[in-house]
Parts: sequence; structure tokens; C-alpha cells
Amino acid sequence: MSQLASVPSNNSPYSDLPPIITKLFEAKARKGLSFEKLAQAIGKDEIWVAAAFYGQAKLGPEDIEALARALDVPLASIQNELGSHWWPNRGLGSVPPTDPVIYRLFEGVLVYGHAIKAVIHEKFGDGIMSMIDCKINVTKKPDPKGDRVILTFDGKFLPYAKW
Amino acid sequence: MSQLASVPSNNSPYSDLPPIITKLFEAKARKGLSFEKLAQAIGKDEIWVAAAFYGQAKLGPEDIEALARALDVPLASIQNELGSHWWPNRGLGSVPPTDPVIYRLFEGVLVYGHAIKAVIHEKFGDGIMSMIDCKINVTKKPDPKGDRVILTFDGKFLPYAKW
Amino acid sequence: MSQLASVPSNNSPYSDLPPIITKLFEAKARKGLSFEKLAQAIGKDEIWVAAAFYGQAKLGPEDIEALARALDVPLASIQNELGSHWWPNRGLGSVPPTDPVIYRLFEGVLVYGHAIKAVIHEKFGDGIMSMIDCKINVTKKPDPKGDRVILTFDGKFLPYAKW
Amino acid sequence: MSQLASVPSNNSPYSDLPPIITKLFEAKARKGLSFEKLAQAIGKDEIWVAAAFYGQAKLGPEDIEALARALDVPLASIQNELGSHWWPNRGLGSVPPTDPVIYRLFEGVLVYGHAIKAVIHEKFGDGIMSMIDCKINVTKKPDPKGDRVILTFDGKFLPYAKW
Amino acid sequence: MSQLASVPSNNSPYSDLPPIITKLFEAKARKGLSFEKLAQAIGKDEIWVAAAFYGQAKLGPEDIEALARALDVPLASIQNELGSHWWPNRGLGSVPPTDPVIYRLFEGVLVYGHAIKAVIHEKFGDGIMSMIDCKINVTKKPDPKGDRVILTFDGKFLPYAKW
Amino acid sequence: MSQLASVPSNNSPYSDLPPIITKLFEAKARKGLSFEKLAQAIGKDEIWVAAAFYGQAKLGPEDIEALARALDVPLASIQNELGSHWWPNRGLGSVPPTDPVIYRLFEGVLVYGHAIKAVIHEKFGDGIMSMIDCKINVTKKPDPKGDRVILTFDGKFLPYAKW
Amino acid sequence: MSQLASVPSNNSPYSDLPPIITKLFEAKARKGLSFEKLAQAIGKDEIWVAAAFYGQAKLGPEDIEALARALDVPLASIQNELGSHWWPNRGLGSVPPTDPVIYRLFEGVLVYGHAIKAVIHEKFGDGIMSMIDCKINVTKKPDPKGDRVILTFDGKFLPYAKW
Amino acid sequence: MSQLASVPSNNSPYSDLPPIITKLFEAKARKGLSFEKLAQAIGKDEIWVAAAFYGQAKLGPEDIEALARALDVPLASIQNELGSHWWPNRGLGSVPPTDPVIYRLFEGVLVYGHAIKAVIHEKFGDGIMSMIDCKINVTKKPDPKGDRVILTFDGKFLPYAKW
Amino acid sequence: MSQLASVPSNNSPYSDLPPIITKLFEAKARKGLSFEKLAQAIGKDEIWVAAAFYGQAKLGPEDIEALARALDVPLASIQNELGSHWWPNRGLGSVPPTDPVIYRLFEGVLVYGHAIKAVIHEKFGDGIMSMIDCKINVTKKPDPKGDRVILTFDGKFLPYAKW
Amino acid sequence: MSQLASVPSNNSPYSDLPPIITKLFEAKARKGLSFEKLAQAIGKDEIWVAAAFYGQAKLGPEDIEALARALDVPLASIQNELGSHWWPNRGLGSVPPTDPVIYRLFEGVLVYGHAIKAVIHEKFGDGIMSMIDCKINVTKKPDPKGDRVILTFDGKFLPYAKW
Repeated sequence: MSQLASVPSNNSPYSDLPPIITKLFEAKARKGLSFEKLAQAIGKDEIWVAAAFYGQAKLGPEDIEALARALDVPLASIQNELGSHWWPNRGLGSVPPTDPVIYRLFEGVLVYGHAIKAVIHEKFGDGIMSMIDCKINVTKKPDPKGDRVILTFDGKFLPYAKW
Repeated sequence: MSQLASVPSNNSPYSDLPPIITKLFEAKARKGLSFEKLAQAIGKDEIWVAAAFYGQAKLGPEDIEALARALDVPLASIQNELGSHWWPNRGLGSVPPTDPVIYRLFEGVLVYGHAIKAVIHEKFGDGIMSMIDCKINVTKKPDPKGDRVILTFDGKFLPYAKW
Repeated sequence: MSQLASVPSNNSPYSDLPPIITKLFEAKARKGLSFEKLAQAIGKDEIWVAAAFYGQAKLGPEDIEALARALDVPLASIQNELGSHWWPNRGLGSVPPTDPVIYRLFEGVLVYGHAIKAVIHEKFGDGIMSMIDCKINVTKKPDPKGDRVILTFDGKFLPYAKW
Repeated sequence: MSQLASVPSNNSPYSDLPPIITKLFEAKARKGLSFEKLAQAIGKDEIWVAAAFYGQAKLGPEDIEALARALDVPLASIQNELGSHWWPNRGLGSVPPTDPVIYRLFEGVLVYGHAIKAVIHEKFGDGIMSMIDCKINVTKKPDPKGDRVILTFDGKFLPYAKW
Repeated sequence: MSQLASVPSNNSPYSDLPPIITKLFEAKARKGLSFEKLAQAIGKDEIWVAAAFYGQAKLGPEDIEALARALDVPLASIQNELGSHWWPNRGLGSVPPTDPVIYRLFEGVLVYGHAIKAVIHEKFGDGIMSMIDCKINVTKKPDPKGDRVILTFDGKFLPYAKW
Repeated sequence: MSQLASVPSNNSPYSDLPPIITKLFEAKARKGLSFEKLAQAIGKDEIWVAAAFYGQAKLGPEDIEALARALDVPLASIQNELGSHWWPNRGLGSVPPTDPVIYRLFEGVLVYGHAIKAVIHEKFGDGIMSMIDCKINVTKKPDPKGDRVILTFDGKFLPYAKW
Repeated sequence: MSQLASVPSNNSPYSDLPPIITKLFEAKARKGLSFEKLAQAIGKDEIWVAAAFYGQAKLGPEDIEALARALDVPLASIQNELGSHWWPNRGLGSVPPTDPVIYRLFEGVLVYGHAIKAVIHEKFGDGIMSMIDCKINVTKKPDPKGDRVILTFDGKFLPYAKW
Repeated sequence: MSQLASVPSNNSPYSDLPPIITKLFEAKARKGLSFEKLAQAIGKDEIWVAAAFYGQAKLGPEDIEALARALDVPLASIQNELGSHWWPNRGLGSVPPTDPVIYRLFEGVLVYGHAIKAVIHEKFGDGIMSMIDCKINVTKKPDPKGDRVILTFDGKFLPYAKW
Repeated sequence: MSQLASVPSNNSPYSDLPPIITKLFEAKARKGLSFEKLAQAIGKDEIWVAAAFYGQAKLGPEDIEALARALDVPLASIQNELGSHWWPNRGLGSVPPTDPVIYRLFEGVLVYGHAIKAVIHEKFGDGIMSMIDCKINVTKKPDPKGDRVILTFDGKFLPYAKW
Repeated sequence: MSQLASVPSNNSPYSDLPPIITKLFEAKARKGLSFEKLAQAIGKDEIWVAAAFYGQAKLGPEDIEALARALDVPLASIQNELGSHWWPNRGLGSVPPTDPVIYRLFEGVLVYGHAIKAVIHEKFGDGIMSMIDCKINVTKKPDPKGDRVILTFDGKFLPYAKW
């Protein structure tokens, strides 16, 4: 693990994020912490913590304190940039995405989006799966033919208002 | 259940699909079958069957026979349009999607895509979750505060080649 | 009021909607009914009824019956196209919109979107105003300097999940 | 409240705004003032003040003075950048917007735009709701099932010229 | 002048307009009437009449009657399609425009838009020139070095609301 | 008038223009000169001068001298950046424009472009109104119901070559 | 040469052109005439005639007569569709073009556009090469290493107005 | 000619080119050399030299030496940036172009592209005019009615492979 | 193999191709011929034949005769639509492509395009690999870990002209 | 070979890559190494090494060590930026590409993509050629009529899941 890991602050997506973000990524790299371990340290799920690292979730005061402790980053430097006055400006990266990992998720929407919509309507009625009250996680399922990624979205169903 | 349900063949997304598709949707509606029941009848998962209805999956000869039986649609009419000579031209609908159900999935990619990518890399290394060798399902989790949609992608991890 | 009002089924936005839609618009025009009067007749709000006419809301069985009665349109013809098997494929028209009435709403998002977001966060915290559990109405406020349009969105606040 | 709140001047949307803007946001954060309180201090509505903070409204000389006083920011520094020679270059952020709060407003245009247009025409005739002579506000309506955001546009109706 | 002038109803922009429109254009061609003469016949300006022919203005009941008379087109056929129930869906053609005549106007916006904005602000203050309460005309100014087109927009200035 | 007016050189549209441009705007603001007065001082029309300030017209050697004199800016600093070796790279701002002043001009093209084209053809034949040999001006027409902006394009008609 | 050559009227670019266009192409094919021979028959240049076939130039009354004669097509059928009431709606095909022949021209603009602009300015001053008063031709230059296409644009220089 | 001509390195298209490029343009301006004279000095055509200045052609070692001599620029400074290790990343400016000079060329492709394609096919068969083995030049043809720009592309015909 | 295989002529990409194309696909399907066998029958490579089926290559007179024979399709019906008067309008499908098979090729350009360009320049100098004089083939390489697709482009190197 | 070769870090595509990347390109240029020789030095293929130089592949610890040795670049400087904490954000350059070398590959997808898809399906069934488990190479085939580029993609076939 490099003692001097640096993260390219002029590269996408970091250039669109507050400067403290690259400092947090560098501290995480120097500590050799995965999002999983970091998440355990601050009592949250790893995908949510990673989302916060990409400026896509709002850290609460205790989250900021726990993060400063876990990464040995001065508390004030995080508070100054990501404190109570900061709100996420969500949505990151180009549309459509070009990175193959993210593109595959987008391809899932293109290929299976209508099927998912149809089944949600049949099971729940007219409405949507919330992406606001939604919890996401990624787990690894070992498989002799090749390990599998299990990606789950657990979102509240919201029925359409009629008035 | 209307005995004469019709599906608008000139509307998106039906207008981009083989003509037999609207016939299949109409037969399904007139029979009052959900994708879940139809899937049980032909021994497949409901999301996969719905994907096939939207021209996003290739039915095998037995799938076609089972479908014709379950829907009382002449076997030849399906074979003629979706038989062995037909291959899905995948990817359906506008980019970005405007329907709120499908847009929420797209928003999930915009907001959580980088976080999912980061965690996949940390758990699996450099590579992607396949959207080809991938199984998707939707289940309903009852919840007194509002039922929840559980959407799962179960895809093989593919490591990047080095050569 | 023309006894033979016709609606251009090959024009946007009608060409993207089920064929019954132009029939409903023609019946409404021939009856000389405004959305306000039609809405009273079927016990709903006028914006919601107009949204349903543009294929953006799902009519329930009683809504369809009330509509057929109010417009003297055969019940079955509406049920066949917009019955329980039909689900709205929401999102209508070009992006950005070119019609000045609709463009002004879009301009409101461009010019005041960030201000509205900032005030919502300050009053409610991290989250959004739902456009699913949302009721919209338009009223006329007489004013000697020129009447005013009062357009109101009444949407549930949804806090972001943390997990 | 952090004594050293900083705002990322290289991030969207701040990077598209005059440099004084981030100073104003930082002063507001350090004072712990909401737009509501700040608006009371300078005798304007909170949405209009927030719009001015995002470079979307033109402050008059007295507005600038009141703002300098309320925020303890040197008067000249605001006058130099946002004085009488400065005119808003309106329209902020990407199209379509990716942030979910702002996207929901945009979705409102996509889904309900045609319905709003139809009802405006029926109530007022051929013309538009002005987005120039328009006042916008956001209020909180407590509701045991979840508080609601009431967002109102109060715009003058402008009839189309015929000549 | 051909007695059988036809207008390509499947071509842009006619394909985006109500079917009666091509009939009106054909009648006008067969009568050998310019927009100028037609406008005199119905007591309006030629640009406004041309705009109505392209579905960009709303004809009143008397306009429709005058038009039917001037073109020997059955009154009912215009009323049925463009009567009181019809509202213009404004905005025609591709963006950016490709036709050189229209592109030059667009180029005028690209090249001189900021200059026009700056001078409007200096002469009128913060606000816009209305394109709703706006009258447009085209006249020919003979010039030995080549005749000149004089295109004038006469629009009401609308000051921005402050609230 | 601020003695220290500054213009945001990193903001659109200034960031796309030579650095001297913001100096010229600042000098103009500090002198308290409108484009109208500045234009009189250098013997040109105000729209043309404003266009030159936005990098959309080429100043001749005498124009540069007159400008340096009128604004008390060192002659060489203008010559170095906008001298005989500099040619305008015309076309400024996003497409479509988002600022409401400029958007209204663009809306004029969308709504009235086909009508203007049709009338030009009828009055002049097959050809275009030049946007190169074109003079533009803006005047204020007082009106008790609200002052009006008179915007005029005076462009040479160019007939299409046949060969 | 097939006696029954047909041209796909539902294919781009024919589907965007008046129906008579495909008839003219078919007549030309059945006669076995190249644009060169056809151009000689009607006394015009082949590129101009080809442009007219693609709806990009306006045929005069004598051009229409000569064309009808040369192709044995009824005069009235051309007059009805392309007569004095018809004006070209110029600009054909997708942007950027995908056909390799047309793309190469577009690539020429991308790669050499700035160089051509710079040399035009140096030789002529501030202005443009007209694409309205412009004659284009294509000739074949035999070359043992492979024949060469000589494509020439001969356009009037138009100096920018100053006012 | 200014002794201190500067070129805006932060403006399009210079900001997308190696830093030495603006130095070369400045040296050329200070020497008062046109591309024509510079081209003579280094034994190449002016359009090719201009293309190289815009980073669209690869200078050989002797070209670099001749250029350094003609412009009194240190040889090493050109070699370091544009030497044998540098390859053009071709294609410059926005699509579609907004500058009127370059737009006219693009308009030529839109309006005459299909005609040029048709004539190339008739004269040469199935294939393209190469934009790689292509020589371009611009000459001035004096004309009492206004000088004309003669722009010529001389490109090798490449027949399509069949295999 | 269905005796009545049909191909959806209103679906992309068939709807953009001459009508005879769907007849050829149907004949091929009914005969149960792969492109490999069909290619052998007419003495060409399978990818080239498939390209011709998608309207992307020009069949010669003998190719048309051989095809008519191999598929038992009337010779004249092919000649009438794809005879000597027909030229491919190349480029098929949406950009970027959404079908995963075609998207992967596009992804190859996005991810490896710069690397391929760099190596071509190092091995060949300044120039390109021709996509006109280029032969493409696809072969199957059996592999116990999963068969592999070998896709090869064999294109002539074309050096850039200098003049 | 220049001893001071520099690479324009503010130019596309370098500006989108970690800063160390331009240092690596400069070191390679100063050493006079081709990708072929560099690849031999570190025991990988040249296209893969070039992809890594463009930030499109992930170097392992030994790759980084071999690279540092081959280029005499301090090991830590590569590890700090491209070490185990760095993951490629794949996809480089504009869409569609404008550089002719890369555009030709894109053109190959546009013109031959459907043909390649059809032949893959016929030889392998429903599935794709992986662009993740894919090896690419470029070789030179001498030919008296002009050397040829042989570009090969060797990718694993992945059958679509059915579930």
C-alpha cells in the first residue's frame, strides 16, 4: 500500500466534487481500508459510504466525526466542506456512461427496464420503486463457474396520487 | 377483464417490436394472466418472460410452444415472427428514459453507479458484473410503512483480460 | 362548437398515444366540455383528468365508466384500450419543450430549480418533493393589471434513506 | 455551525457564477442563516433571495446594501461584482437535470406539462403563464403521513398578440 | 399557376401539422394568392397569417370564416380541425434548423444574441422582449446594390418580478 | 457606479473570449458608459459595438484607437489581443440558449421561422436574407401599456445561384 | 438497365422528399441517364441537377419542362408538386452524416475548416464564402496511381457589414 | 503590425492545442507573415501549413526546422512539443460549427452532400473521395460583381472492397 | 425451420432499408441458409454478404443473379430495387448503439481506440487504416473455457497527403 | 529524438488522465521507445500497454515495477497515482470520435456492426463477443499495393442467460 497514494483531482469524476473528497480517498488508500471496513468503522453500509465519498449522500454530524476518526483526517477540514451547509448535487458522470462497469448497469435499464416496470405494475399497481427511500447493496456469491455479483435495490413502492 | 383488450401497436415501445408482440400482449390481457402466472406456465422466471414480451430475450422452440399453449395463440404465428431466424435487437425506449418507473432505475445508475463500481472493484478486482450472464428478479416485501420492491441483479463477475 | 371536431391523430403528442385518446378529445370537443366540467362530472380534479387524457395517469374502472357516461362514448371502447391491462408510459413531448406554454415551466426549472432545491433542503432536510404523491392544480386569480395563473404543486417530502 | 464553512468554487453550479457568490454562501453558512431569515433581513421572499444567490436574479442597490449588512460582507466587494453593470445570465445546470430534487420538477413538466397547458388555455385562452412576471414560493404543510412541500408559481397570464 | 398544386403531406414540416393545413396551402397555391394578398383579404398581417398556416397561431372564428371565403374551402372543414377546441402546439422544425433561410435567423441569435441582450438591459433594465406580445413583419427595401429584407420584431418589454 | 467594477472572467460567456474583453467591460462599467454612448464616441452603432465587445465583430485599426481613447485603456493592450491578426470565432453561448432574453429570440425562430421564410420567398424569390451583410438595431418605443422593444434586422437578399 | 427500377420511397433520404422525387429517380434509372447526360439535356450543371433531385434546389418553369421532356414524365405531375408554390426546405440527412462518402466531406470541415477560414481571412478580410451564390462541380482526373475526384466550390466572398 | 501580438490560449480552438501553437501564431503575427508567405518559405501549400498550425497535420523534421527558421522560434521548443513523438488528434471545434465561415462549409455538406455523392458514384462507381490522400487549396478569383473564393478538394477515389 | 418465416419490416433496422431486403431475409430463413452457406453459394465472404443484406454493400449484377438463384427469388425483383441505379446509403442503427453485441464493438472503440491509433502510428506513420479497402471476417475458435470469437479487420494503410 | 519531448497535459485526451500519464509518455518519447519495444521489456502485448498508457487498463504491481525500470521513472511516482487504489475509469474521447483513425473504427461499427452481429448469432447462438475477456492486436502485413493493417479482436463468446 503506497504511503503517498494520490487521487487525480483534475480527473472525472473527482473534478466535479469538493476538494476534500480527494483527500478522503487518499487517506482511505493510505490506511489501506476498503469501503467495507470503513463502513463497519462508522456503522453504515459500504455502498452508502461509497456514495458519500462520491458526493452522492449527505453525511450527518456523527458520520463526519466517525469518518475523521477512522481516517485520521482533521475533523474541521471535513466539516468545513461537507458540513451542515453542504447538500449533495446528485448525479455523477457522463450520460450515457462509458465506463464498462457502469455502462452494464445502464444496459440493464435499456434491456430490462420495460420488463421490470411491467412486473412492478402487476405486483404493486400504478406507481414506482423509490430511489430516495432505497437501500442498495453488493455481495459476493462464490461460484465454481465464476463468482457472482449480487446487486440488490430495496426501495419503497410509491403509488401514484389521484386527485 | 376486457374480452377485447387491445394494445396500441403504433405507440412506443410496441411500434419498435415485431407485430406478433402486440398480439401476445392482447392474448395475455384477455386471459387475465400476470407475467408471474405465465412464467409458471412455461417454466421460466417472470422478468425473463416479460423481457421476451418486450423483444429483449430470445425464446427457444419449447418456450414458443409453451407460450402458444398458455395463451391459445396459433403456434405458427409466433414461430413465423420470433422463430429461430429472429434475434433480439436489444435496447428499448428513449435515452434518458422519461417514464418515472424506468427513470428511477436510471437515476440509480447516475447517483449510485460510481459507488457500486468502487465496491465491485474492492470485492472482486478489475472487471465487471456481466449483464449477459445475469438473472434479474423483482419481489414484494410487505412492510407496514409501505411495501417494498426488492430488485436483484445476479450477474457473473468477469475479470479484465491482460495480454 | 363544431359538431364534427376532429383531433389530428398523426400530430404530436396525439400520435404517441393510444388511438382512443383522439376519440376522447373529439367527444369532449363536440360536447363542449372543459376539463373543469368534465372533472366535476367524474369527481376528480381537472389537471388529473387532463393528465389522463394525455395518457399520463391511469384511470380506474369507475373513472372509465364515469368518463364513458359523461362523453357518451361506448364503455367498451375505452376499456379495450385503457383498461386494467394498460399502464401509462409517462413523459410526453420533446426535450427541451418548444411550445412556449410548456417551455416557460421548463424555464422555471432552469432559472429557479437550484433556489427551490436550496429552500426545500433548508426547510425539510436532505430529500425531495415527490412527483408521484403530488397533486397539481391551476386556478385563475383576477387582477386588474392582468389575470394571474396560480399553479400549485402539493407533493409529499421524501427524506433520503441512510443505511 | 462551522466557523470556516467553505463552498467548492470549482464545482457545478458555483463554477459558472461570479466568485463573490461562493463568498456569500460561505458568509451565510458561517452566520448560520437560512434563506428564510436572510430574506426577512432584507425584506424579500426567500425563493427570490435564493435565486439571487444562484445568480438568477438582479439585486438592486438597496438589496446589495441590505445583504452586505446582514452578512457582514464588505459592501464594495458585492457592488464590484454584482453592481449595476452586472446582468444575470440566467439558466443554471445541465439539461436534463440529474439532481433528483431538480429532476422531479423537470419530470413534472414532462408528465403534467400538456395537462397544465390545456387547462391554462381553457381558463384563459391562447397565451402563456409568464415566467418573468412570476412569483414563486415554497411552504411546508405538516401532515401526519409525511410533511408536504407546497410549491406555488403565481405568474401573469399573457395573451398571444394577433396583428 | 398549376390548377392541381399539391403539398407533400408526408414531408417536414407539413407532416407535423393537422391534415387541413396541406389543403389550405394547396388552395392558396391554386388561387395564386400570396400571403400578402391573403392577409389583406382577411384583415391581418401577412406574417401572422403565414404563422397560422404553419400551425403557430390560433385563428379566431371570424378568421376561419374569412379564410374559408378567401380560399373557397368549406368552412366546416377548417372549423373541424382548427376550431375553438384546437390550440397551437408551437415550435416547428429541427434544432438547430438546417434550412439556410431559417438558419440565418438562428445564426443571428448565436452571433448577435448577447449584444441584443446587453443593449435591451441598458435601455430597459432587467427584463425581456416578449415573444408573446410581439408583432413581426417583413418588408422589401429596394436597393441598387441588391434589395434588402427588413425584418422587424416589435415586442413588449417585460420587467422581471421581484418579490 | 462602482470604481472597481469587475467582470467574472471565468463565467460564460467571458471565459470563451480573449482576456482583454473583460478589461474592456470593466473599463466601460467604471466610466459609466452605455453601449449607446460608447457607440457615439467611436462613430458606430451600439449593437455593432456590443457585438465587438462579445468578440463577434472585428474592430478595425481606427475602431481600436477610438475605443482606447473612449475608455482610457492602453492602445497596445487592445491591439495585442484584438489587432489585425485576430479574427472573430463567431457563435457564443449554449444551444439552445437558456437565458430568457436570448431564448425569446430563439423562440421567435422556432415559432415564426417558417412564416418568415415563406414571406421572404414570396416577396423576393428563392434565396435568403444575409446575416453577413446585415445591420441590426434595437430601439425603445414608449407605450402607456408598457414600453416596446423594436428589434430590426436589415439584411441584403441573396438569390440562390443556378448553374 | 432494369425496365422497372424502383426507388425505396420509405427510406432516408427519399422519405423526407416530395413523392414525385422517387418517380423522377425511377424515370432517370429506367432511361439509363446519368446526371451528366440529364444535365446536358436541360442545360444545367450536373451537381445542380442532382441537388434539385434531392429537393435542394428550386427548378424554374423551363427546368421543369425540360425535365419532363428528357424523362418522359407528365409535365403536370412535376408542376403539381415542384411548381412555383414549392420552395426547397434545405438540409438533408442526419448530423453528423453516417454515409462514408458524405462523412468524408464533413471530416474535411472538421479537420481543415479552421485552416480554410484562416486563409480566407488572410486573402479576403473579415467575411465568408457564400454557400448561396456558390457553384459546385465534380470532375474526374485520371491518375495511374488511382483516379482522383476534383471537387470545387466557387462562392462569392461576402464581407461582414459594419454599421 | 503589433510587436506584441498575443493569441488567447484559453479560447477555443487554441485551448485544445499544444501550448507551442499559440507561440507559433504569435510569432507569425509579429513577423507579419501570411500563411501564403510562410508556406513559400517552407516549401508547402498554405492550407496544409494552416492545418499544421491548427494541429491538424504532422510536421516532418525538415518542416519543423524550416518553420523555426522562418519564424525565429527556437527549434527545440517546436521539436519538444510537435516532434516525432507527437501525432495529430484531428477534428477541431464544435459540431455543428457555429462560426459562419466554417458553418457555410458544413451547410455545403448538408445541402449538396447527397448530390456530390450521387455524381461521384455515377462517375467512379461504389467508393469514396479520400479525405486522407486529399489536397485542398483556396484561391481568389477577382470578379467585378464581388471577388470569388475558389475552394478545391483534390482527393483520390477509393473503390469499396468486395471480398 | 418455419416455412413462413417473416421479418418485421417496420422494425429497426429493416424499416430503414429497401423493401426487398425483408424478402431476402425471409427467403434465407425459409431455405434455412446461414450467411456462411449463402456466401459459398455466391462466391463471396459471409460478412460481406451479410453487409449487403443490411444494405451496406453494393451487389454487382452477377452477385444479384447468384443471390436470386440461391434463394429462389425472382431476379427482377432484386434488380428493380438493388440494381445498378441503387447505391448504399451506409451507416445503420442508433448512435451510440444499444444492442449489446454492437455496443461491445463500440466499447472497443471507446476503450481501445486511442491505443490502436498510437500503435498504428508507430508501425506505419501518420495515416489511417482504411475502412473502404478493408475486409472483415469472423471465425470461431473452440476453447474448453468457452469458445472465442475472432474478429479481424484487414484494411489498407493510407498515409496522409502533404502538399 | 528530442531530449525534452513534452506532452500537452491540457489537451484531450491527456487532460482527462492522471498527471503521471503525461510523464510516462514523455519518458517513453525521450527514451525513443515504441509501444512494441516497451511491451517486450515488460512482458505484455503492445496494445495492452498502450491502453494502460491511456488509462484504460489496470497495471499490476509487477507491471508498475517493470515500467518504472524500463522508463527510468521513479517507482513511487507511478505507484502513488496508479497503484492498487486506482481503478480505470474507462472510455476516452468524444462520441462520435472526430479523429480519422478512431472514426474509421467507429465507421466499421456503423457499417458492419449488424453484419457482424448476424454472423456471430449464426455461428454461436444468442450472446455476445466479450470486450472484457478480449485480446486485441495490430500487425503489419506488407503488400506491394500498400501495406495493410491487420487488427484482431479475440473475445470470449458469452451466451445470454435464461432463467
